[in-house]
Amino acid sequence: MASIGKPRGTRDFTPEEMERRRRVETALREVFRRYGYREVATPTMEHLELFTLKSGEAIVEETYAFTDKSGRELALRPELTAPVMRFYVEQMQMEPKPLKLLYFGNCFRYDRPQAGRYREFWQMGCELIGTRTPEALAELIALAYHALRGAGLEDILLRVGDLAPLRALLDDMGVEDAAAIMRLIDKGDRAGVEGALAGRPGADTFLEYLDCAEAAALEDLVGKEQTSRLTGVLDWLSDMDTPARLDPSIARGLDYYTGIVFEIDAPALGAEKQLCGGGEYSLVPLLGGTETPTAGFALGFDRILLALEREGRAPEEKEPLVYVTPVGEDMLRPAARLAHRLRRQGLRVDMDLMRRSVSKSLQHAHRLGARHAVIVGADEWARDAVVVKNMASGEQREVAVKELAAVIW
Amino acid sequence: MASIGKPRGTRDFTPEEMERRRRVETALREVFRRYGYREVATPTMEHLELFTLKSGEAIVEETYAFTDKSGRELALRPELTAPVMRFYVEQMQMEPKPLKLLYFGNCFRYDRPQAGRYREFWQMGCELIGTRTPEALAELIALAYHALRGAGLEDILLRVGDLAPLRALLDDMGVEDAAAIMRLIDKGDRAGVEGALAGRPGADTFLEYLDCAEAAALEDLVGKEQTSRLTGVLDWLSDMDTPARLDPSIARGLDYYTGIVFEIDAPALGAEKQLCGGGEYSLVPLLGGTETPTAGFALGFDRILLALEREGRAPEEKEPLVYVTPVGEDMLRPAARLAHRLRRQGLRVDMDLMRRSVSKSLQHAHRLGARHAVIVGADEWARDAVVVKNMASGEQREVAVKELAAVIW
Repeated sequence: MASIGKPRGTRDFTPEEMERRRRVETALREVFRRYGYREVATPTMEHLELFTLKSGEAIVEETYAFTDKSGRELALRPELTAPVMRFYVEQMQMEPKPLKLLYFGNCFRYDRPQAGRYREFWQMGCELIGTRTPEALAELIALAYHALRGAGLEDILLRVGDLAPLRALLDDMGVEDAAAIMRLIDKGDRAGVEGALAGRPGADTFLEYLDCAEAAALEDLVGKEQTSRLTGVLDWLSDMDTPARLDPSIARGLDYYTGIVFEIDAPALGAEKQLCGGGEYSLVPLLGGTETPTAGFALGFDRILLALEREGRAPEEKEPLVYVTPVGEDMLRPAARLAHRLRRQGLRVDMDLMRRSVSKSLQHAHRLGARHAVIVGADEWARDAVVVKNMASGEQREVAVKELAAVIW
Repeated sequence: MASIGKPRGTRDFTPEEMERRRRVETALREVFRRYGYREVATPTMEHLELFTLKSGEAIVEETYAFTDKSGRELALRPELTAPVMRFYVEQMQMEPKPLKLLYFGNCFRYDRPQAGRYREFWQMGCELIGTRTPEALAELIALAYHALRGAGLEDILLRVGDLAPLRALLDDMGVEDAAAIMRLIDKGDRAGVEGALAGRPGADTFLEYLDCAEAAALEDLVGKEQTSRLTGVLDWLSDMDTPARLDPSIARGLDYYTGIVFEIDAPALGAEKQLCGGGEYSLVPLLGGTETPTAGFALGFDRILLALEREGRAPEEKEPLVYVTPVGEDMLRPAARLAHRLRRQGLRVDMDLMRRSVSKSLQHAHRLGARHAVIVGADEWARDAVVVKNMASGEQREVAVKELAAVIW
């Protein structure tokens, strides 16, 4: 019969890939831990309404939404901030502030599969709830940067901006649909922005503002008061050993962002270079909770893996494996007992389970990448010993069973 | 506005719950690692057909199935064996045998939510591909048992059976719908089995067989040849330090099981006591692959957590946290730099991010369960020192910054 494939745009992960993914997950998580973040988890599906509230009706088009058997509209989560904040509003509003929440989970988007974009993808991220001091924002941004460094990335670029002065400028210019302009900026559609603002007084200042790379120039354009928050955060970042570039043109895609925003890219990835995006946002009142400052970011886990590959990091050494080979069926039981004992000591142990000849069994050990083979033969066993073969050098020697663990660790 | 809740039958997990869950996940994974299993992952959704092939059309009723925008019938996976074996057939048939695959993931079932049964739940499990020797089966079963022990469970009960003699007996009796009888046995519906077999020659032997608790009695009833595989596996298990009970009445729910089967219960959980189920099965040919022996098991991750709670294990000590408190805004920067340095040394560090008074800040440190507070004041800082407060005893003393890490580790 014809075989059934995986759904389009989804992926299977091999043991090699999963080893790498779990290693990066662990390294990232460790950095969040050091910053005092604690993990929460929410369901894979939510009421569709949760996401349209946050991101507008347009999101339905690229969301896996379905009606369940009771007629409820559900969606596979396209992102994790809305679910985590729903959880906060339902159960955690009384927790001491600031509250630091971490998440790691799969998300879904229903668009055309393309390089580096999958229909199921993973995000690790966090929310910082209850404070808006510049040092708090800086700590959050420093965490994003150092998490990526902790995962092993060298070549990353952090840019920080502030939406408040951007929106104030658009407001001064009397622009009605500021959100549309923000989306054009976010897409990097310079011509689009110019077209939309053409002929308006202040348009030149606005375009100049987007290009500012220095705090001083920014202050000259819009005044110290409008820029002090952003420059304050940048100041704190240098105290926190976190190189950052001023970028007033960060607009983020979504209306719900309010103030300080930031992005981290891996330039080596080209068009799909963004690894992280985040900033201050407002969502709690929309979800029925009591207003409180909120900020957060999400790391694109799959892109981090891709960026690590591009940086050409040497593959980490494989976990050592001990392979136990019985010589003949009579030695099967002693071999199984020995394997069991070595596992109890914490070793990773495989044993021949197919009653193969010693040479076939050693071939298998070699294919598995075993570091040592432990050959259990009757003669040696009679004197409480086994033969240990170093699989790399081929060297063999007899070792007393009670000294075995010390030799093969 | 009214707040949006989570979908019915799903759960949010608090930081305390996630800490416990990640700890148990790590402990389980460590045991699989020692047995030479390597992790793979598959998509959360699959073509619905994959699951109906394995489990029959009846499964559609309790599966989250939906038609995507291209008209394909997709399903949120109700279990992980079919996806992992699909992956095997597609990409891993040429790998050296035996192949040992581990998975951990969320699954979905659309039934009425009830105690201990959720619409989204987690399974860790494995597949052993390419061997059917009794020692291989025994190693697999020993792994299931020792994984649960490794997670911290004391009171668990392992039962092992064999479907081959059961099916042979039904065949001898001329039963047409053996699968229906097997399902009655699986449900523990003794009266149902008796009713279905009433009047048939051999029915008494069959019922007696189901009740056998000893290998000798089993052999008397159906002969040595029919029971040698099961007793062989049990023999191997005792070599592998794995207490097991003979249970010829294990039928498993699904038709796809073929030979040795086993279940592990936590009796403390009552009706929902089963933590693990598995055995030999046939699925590869159905998925278009080349026939090869396969066996595996799945652990109910959520029930393991529940069973650990029932056993009343003392909660593990919280991860130590250091809380950095600046005395006044002038000390904010030194405090932030100190926090950053301690994090680089691997410590879990929180810092006051709300510019609170020292006493309010220490209250927060206390609520967070910090082990030490590091108070950064101008006088001490001038002599490169800070005040360290032991949050449990209340004791305070001045510590030189360069000795700080040694004191608070």
